[in-house]
Amino acid sequence: MALTQARTIPGVLELLPLDQIAFQRMLDTIRRNYERFGFLPIETPVIEHTDVLLTKTGGETERQVYFVQSTGALEKGQEGVPELALRFDLTVPLARYVAEHEHDLSFPFRRYQMQRVYRGERAQRGRFREFYQCDIDVIGKDALSVRYDAELPAVIYSVFRELAIGPFSIQLNNRKLMRGYFESLGVADAAQQTLVLREVDKLDKRGPDYVASTLRGEGFGLAEDVVAKILALVQVRSTSVDDAFAKLDALGTGSDLMEQGRDELKQVMALIRDFGVPETHFSLNLSIMRGLDYYTGTVYETTLTEHPEIGSICSGGRYENLAGQYTKSHLPGVGISIGLTRLYWQLREAGLLNTAQSTVDVLVTQMDAAHLPDYLAVAGELRAAGIATEVVLDNGKLGKQFKYADRAGIRFVLVLGEDELAKGMVTVKDLHRGDQFEVARAELVKSLRVELAQARIEQ
Amino acid sequence: MALTQARTIPGVLELLPLDQIAFQRMLDTIRRNYERFGFLPIETPVIEHTDVLLTKTGGETERQVYFVQSTGALEKGQEGVPELALRFDLTVPLARYVAEHEHDLSFPFRRYQMQRVYRGERAQRGRFREFYQCDIDVIGKDALSVRYDAELPAVIYSVFRELAIGPFSIQLNNRKLMRGYFESLGVADAAQQTLVLREVDKLDKRGPDYVASTLRGEGFGLAEDVVAKILALVQVRSTSVDDAFAKLDALGTGSDLMEQGRDELKQVMALIRDFGVPETHFSLNLSIMRGLDYYTGTVYETTLTEHPEIGSICSGGRYENLAGQYTKSHLPGVGISIGLTRLYWQLREAGLLNTAQSTVDVLVTQMDAAHLPDYLAVAGELRAAGIATEVVLDNGKLGKQFKYADRAGIRFVLVLGEDELAKGMVTVKDLHRGDQFEVARAELVKSLRVELAQARIEQ
Repeated sequence: MALTQARTIPGVLELLPLDQIAFQRMLDTIRRNYERFGFLPIETPVIEHTDVLLTKTGGETERQVYFVQSTGALEKGQEGVPELALRFDLTVPLARYVAEHEHDLSFPFRRYQMQRVYRGERAQRGRFREFYQCDIDVIGKDALSVRYDAELPAVIYSVFRELAIGPFSIQLNNRKLMRGYFESLGVADAAQQTLVLREVDKLDKRGPDYVASTLRGEGFGLAEDVVAKILALVQVRSTSVDDAFAKLDALGTGSDLMEQGRDELKQVMALIRDFGVPETHFSLNLSIMRGLDYYTGTVYETTLTEHPEIGSICSGGRYENLAGQYTKSHLPGVGISIGLTRLYWQLREAGLLNTAQSTVDVLVTQMDAAHLPDYLAVAGELRAAGIATEVVLDNGKLGKQFKYADRAGIRFVLVLGEDELAKGMVTVKDLHRGDQFEVARAELVKSLRVELAQARIEQ
Repeated sequence: MALTQARTIPGVLELLPLDQIAFQRMLDTIRRNYERFGFLPIETPVIEHTDVLLTKTGGETERQVYFVQSTGALEKGQEGVPELALRFDLTVPLARYVAEHEHDLSFPFRRYQMQRVYRGERAQRGRFREFYQCDIDVIGKDALSVRYDAELPAVIYSVFRELAIGPFSIQLNNRKLMRGYFESLGVADAAQQTLVLREVDKLDKRGPDYVASTLRGEGFGLAEDVVAKILALVQVRSTSVDDAFAKLDALGTGSDLMEQGRDELKQVMALIRDFGVPETHFSLNLSIMRGLDYYTGTVYETTLTEHPEIGSICSGGRYENLAGQYTKSHLPGVGISIGLTRLYWQLREAGLLNTAQSTVDVLVTQMDAAHLPDYLAVAGELRAAGIATEVVLDNGKLGKQFKYADRAGIRFVLVLGEDELAKGMVTVKDLHRGDQFEVARAELVKSLRVELAQARIEQ
């Protein structure tokens, strides 16, 4: 039989077991922190009705959708767009979920969702067609206090502190402040504001001269001093909450919308501090432009201080109405998302990830198949104590068994030879430290627990 | 704007948060047990190349495949079968994974995988188009000891004991024993054996008379005594390991293949006992026919003793070669699978699931927004102690806050009014027991830990 080449599709991240363990530990850490802050899990199907999925999205996302057809549907050869498609984010499914189950949910509805999403991206390095998103959102019915905008940075802080991937900074802006300030400058039209914001967002890439000349030029035709004020605005960064207040006050009085934005930012920043987030870890950054079509108030980005090239590792913001396409209920919300597949990949590329130790704590070697019942009894005791234990069941040389443990990243290897069995002892080899010790069977669990706790600290 | 009806596609199980928590706890229990036995996690992409996915499968599975096309591919209007498809099980992706990464894996390769799979089933009650499979497999390079066939029932036992969904029984058969016995009866052709086994598998549905007359009739033409022996064979059940040995011996001598099957069954059953599985929980059942095209040795099914109508809740077996379609390496293995979505649904239908308590342990109410910093400080202390805590941030009446906690399944509600704050105390209301107590702030964490530990025992 001719062989088919075993290969994954391009644009996916498939991991070897030890890498998968590292990835899974990140997922677990995120989940644990989401739950600790009182968020509830949901999962939604990967496949949705196309009409449900594409009500709200613009052209660009639509081009990246994966459509789905069963064999039967394909054979019928239906005209037009297929009826089913894969979700491309978790926000549209959340909107659908909340609208569909509205009467069974308690509001404010605080949900987390950690699942994969799909985009028909062109294959290129660092672009994924399948990737994990780890989202939290708080959804209000009719209204939702701006205080929730301060809770999400507290969750982000808790997550990234525990992930321990280096110093990070949560940066905040407020869409109302920006639009209000523009109004004060005479740029009153919302569409025009969006265009200006889009230009300003190019500051990092194109530099201030390019952006200034565009804003002064045809199409925009803004006055010199207006352009200067806009460019000064987006350079505002704070070093502390007090500094943020001072810098916000220094912007001068403005339109109602601007005052509202300023109030919100102040309230949110003060409350983030009350949540216990150190002032070193969050700041005002009036250049944050994220989600111009979608967010209406607070917006967030999070960056690794020592790795700005990675860009934002956790972003989100406040939106006016989650599910207007599905329900007449008014559902304001605030949410953030961690794109874990991309983050993991970038951390690995940057050499910031250690290869995980195996989830397997102990390997019980096989000296003599006749003693298998003894090996299995020891393994059973260890497992009952929550120690992940593998037993060698195939016959084979002891050297080969040690090599296997080493390659598989298993730290502790037990040897129960005739001697040990006769004495009621076990030899424990620590492949990490390269030494070994003997311990009485009755003391084995206790002793390994100490070793494993120690190993976890060392990691 | 016209509203789009928010609706999931038919044939998926989307859960409300408290049900999702119950489901997640089952997933966690399965994972914990898989890891405890030294299995390593992998995840594979949902989308695979169609040619990779469909090398081995027969017509029936092919009809149930979901094909995938990006917008670009759809517009090109490619002829024939689309290039991408969704996985319909975890076995084919495992074969692809092992073949693709063979040189980076250590053998025996012990992997677990808990992901969703997709089948374009006709929509009907209890049939799912998207469902979780929770699989473990041990894959050998060139060879794999039959002892591993005894390890999987030990894992199954450990999983279902901890899931606590009632008494269960793991039932074993061996394909070699069956085929060998048929050889002894003169039914030597493998294809003919499969046809006979397929008929015998109808015993439960059609009854012995129907099956006997089919086997005697045209097409099979088996002699009266041969049919009687076959029907007697498939009625063999054991009550203990010793009883299994006796019943296996009572089958008389047979072909080499039969002897091999008998030896394997004996070795496996004795070793399952050595693994510590009580003899009440596993038995010989020579009617188990599972996976006739695929399994070559040991086969397993698991049933809930008090709910036979649910059918097998965990099945699997030994196969000769995992990935012959992708690689020349010989990769024998043994595996089992839990179809968790179906199992969860059936347990719920049978009224065997309690609604879970929330993952949120504590709700901190809001008496006065001016004291938010106090509420947040208390919540911060609880979270640091690993207690999942939600704080009410919206203004609202206390009664409404209690109602929210009750509806959301949150058991403990904290009240910090002026009185409490002045005295350095907290009032803890237990919505489950309907009582309350006061505790000093400094004692709160300790006290709640005791309550929560107690609550977990009561559950």
